[in-house]
Amino acid sequence: MSVKAYAAQSATTPLAPFSFERRDLRPDDVQVDILYCGVCHSDLHQVRDEWGGSMYPMVPGHEIVGKVVAVGSAVTKYKVGDTVGVGVIIDSCNTCKHCQADYEQYCVEGATGTYNAMERDGVTVSQGGYSSGIVVKEKFVLKVDDKLNLSAVAPLLCAGITTYSPLRFAGVKAGMKVGVVGLGGLGHMGVKFAVAFGAEVSVLSTSPSKEADAKRLGATNFILTTDKEQMKQYGSYFDIILDTVSANHNFTGYLNLLGLEGKLLVVGLPPEAPKVAPFSLISNRRSIIGSMIGSMKETQEMLDFCAEHNVVADVEVIAAADINNAYDRLVKNDVKYRFVIDMKTL
Amino acid sequence: MSVKAYAAQSATTPLAPFSFERRDLRPDDVQVDILYCGVCHSDLHQVRDEWGGSMYPMVPGHEIVGKVVAVGSAVTKYKVGDTVGVGVIIDSCNTCKHCQADYEQYCVEGATGTYNAMERDGVTVSQGGYSSGIVVKEKFVLKVDDKLNLSAVAPLLCAGITTYSPLRFAGVKAGMKVGVVGLGGLGHMGVKFAVAFGAEVSVLSTSPSKEADAKRLGATNFILTTDKEQMKQYGSYFDIILDTVSANHNFTGYLNLLGLEGKLLVVGLPPEAPKVAPFSLISNRRSIIGSMIGSMKETQEMLDFCAEHNVVADVEVIAAADINNAYDRLVKNDVKYRFVIDMKTL
Repeated sequence: MSVKAYAAQSATTPLAPFSFERRDLRPDDVQVDILYCGVCHSDLHQVRDEWGGSMYPMVPGHEIVGKVVAVGSAVTKYKVGDTVGVGVIIDSCNTCKHCQADYEQYCVEGATGTYNAMERDGVTVSQGGYSSGIVVKEKFVLKVDDKLNLSAVAPLLCAGITTYSPLRFAGVKAGMKVGVVGLGGLGHMGVKFAVAFGAEVSVLSTSPSKEADAKRLGATNFILTTDKEQMKQYGSYFDIILDTVSANHNFTGYLNLLGLEGKLLVVGLPPEAPKVAPFSLISNRRSIIGSMIGSMKETQEMLDFCAEHNVVADVEVIAAADINNAYDRLVKNDVKYRFVIDMKTL
Repeated sequence: MSVKAYAAQSATTPLAPFSFERRDLRPDDVQVDILYCGVCHSDLHQVRDEWGGSMYPMVPGHEIVGKVVAVGSAVTKYKVGDTVGVGVIIDSCNTCKHCQADYEQYCVEGATGTYNAMERDGVTVSQGGYSSGIVVKEKFVLKVDDKLNLSAVAPLLCAGITTYSPLRFAGVKAGMKVGVVGLGGLGHMGVKFAVAFGAEVSVLSTSPSKEADAKRLGATNFILTTDKEQMKQYGSYFDIILDTVSANHNFTGYLNLLGLEGKLLVVGLPPEAPKVAPFSLISNRRSIIGSMIGSMKETQEMLDFCAEHNVVADVEVIAAADINNAYDRLVKNDVKYRFVIDMKTL
């Protein structure tokens, strides 16, 4: 089928209207009309080829919510009319030990990204959610509860699961003290989840202007990380710190805020490798744990949790034609906290 | 009581004979005649004030094995004639939540080092095991099984527990693949423990000359870390890697060798903060875990394990007068794998 989209034709040209063909339905495929697609900072990195290896034309977008409009003959979980989501990956080898253990995101052969990735047929480049429709293998489609604000659900598919998964892995629960570093697309979801899990939450930020919002989102404390006195005051205070920062920074200052067996959860990807002072690591038997999105099973669990607890992202809905302006604002962190494209405007 | 010792009078003078007074027995004290004391690389760092804050005269040594020669009136666990050990710490606040939970090494106020530390009376500088005797609070004294080679037991008190504790914390057991980086005083104990726990053990080293010894100690594989092909071949191979290296290095290369939820256990203290490439950390949900010696309870557990499984260090026994030469050789890594001073030679 032919779909309308916004695509980058090169690393230096703005996104512009584009049309292309999606594949015909295979037996295990679900065809989705896209309602909303979130704008992730990684879209911008890849559009501008900041990570290298970008393939053009590129239709970005991996925070997709839409309606099922057709299903393949072997599809059992979805029917026409269902509200569904598609996230960061659309395929994996499905046979390796990690895939078999429900960790598709850590597929030994590498999972297939929703866009800017070579699909497993070895010839098709995947194209993402800044488009009117998508065809995805049933296993990589997620159920979304209709009662939620669907534009605000879209960012759960990347920002949501990326923060939910490590917080769950670390066992965040009532009585724990959780710090969230960086109040952006990921960080604001981290705060919402940690609060929903019953933890006492603190936001750590370089921007005093974030304090009011941090409290509004449910944080108890706000720590200005440039204030040495405040940082000292919270020494060995936290059980868990979720570090969502993708700008260059070191881990040591945050490690020092962790108590016995405290865990620094890392989900950001700074361009330069952060440093770790070994004495800060061995004190209190601290650890640093990396985490990459989440499995399909865990993403569904998160979406169900969000429906039950009414957790969604804070979004600014934009028209497709505003995407280049949105990217400019994203670079300046001028968004609270996620742009979401309304696909009706395509 | 007056004891004979070897002490450094400054950061730049060699160790030389020295006499000083140990305190009179308090009710909960144990007085020990020292038989053997291991030579830890940290002795050299502190003698030469390489970590800053050294206090002179300094009697180093925190891998102590000896015989009880007197006990205070309230001592219940030890009697005259018992063989005992003293390790890296000789006191802690004993009241904080970490001490109460049997984690004296992570005492909130800071545990008291066996030498070069201010004792909790606020006026006495602790003096270590390169001496004929020591007086230590009962809680910080350990039972040693006489049937072991006591000179080879001494290094268990630091090199042993420092590697035993993180391997236990990480749950090393039969069927696991464990890598040990660096085959020195700590590394050779790490290999022995991982083998004793039933794991398949690999030694990772920059020195091809270590291969024969690695195999002799029980390692199945030897990986030359300067060989890119070998490092690639072992990508995502290990469950656990114990990094014992105190020279400057980065963590990223070792992280890449860890499989799903693999753990890099860090016990070394390189002078410069190692770097961590975040993508290597988030792939496979890897973690980096620091660890500092072990608690008194765990140190006793280790000594009991060593007695049961006949695990001791490989040592080169020296006379006290040879200590400066031993330090010179230590700097060149010319020891297999721990110097131990025979205190009869004092």
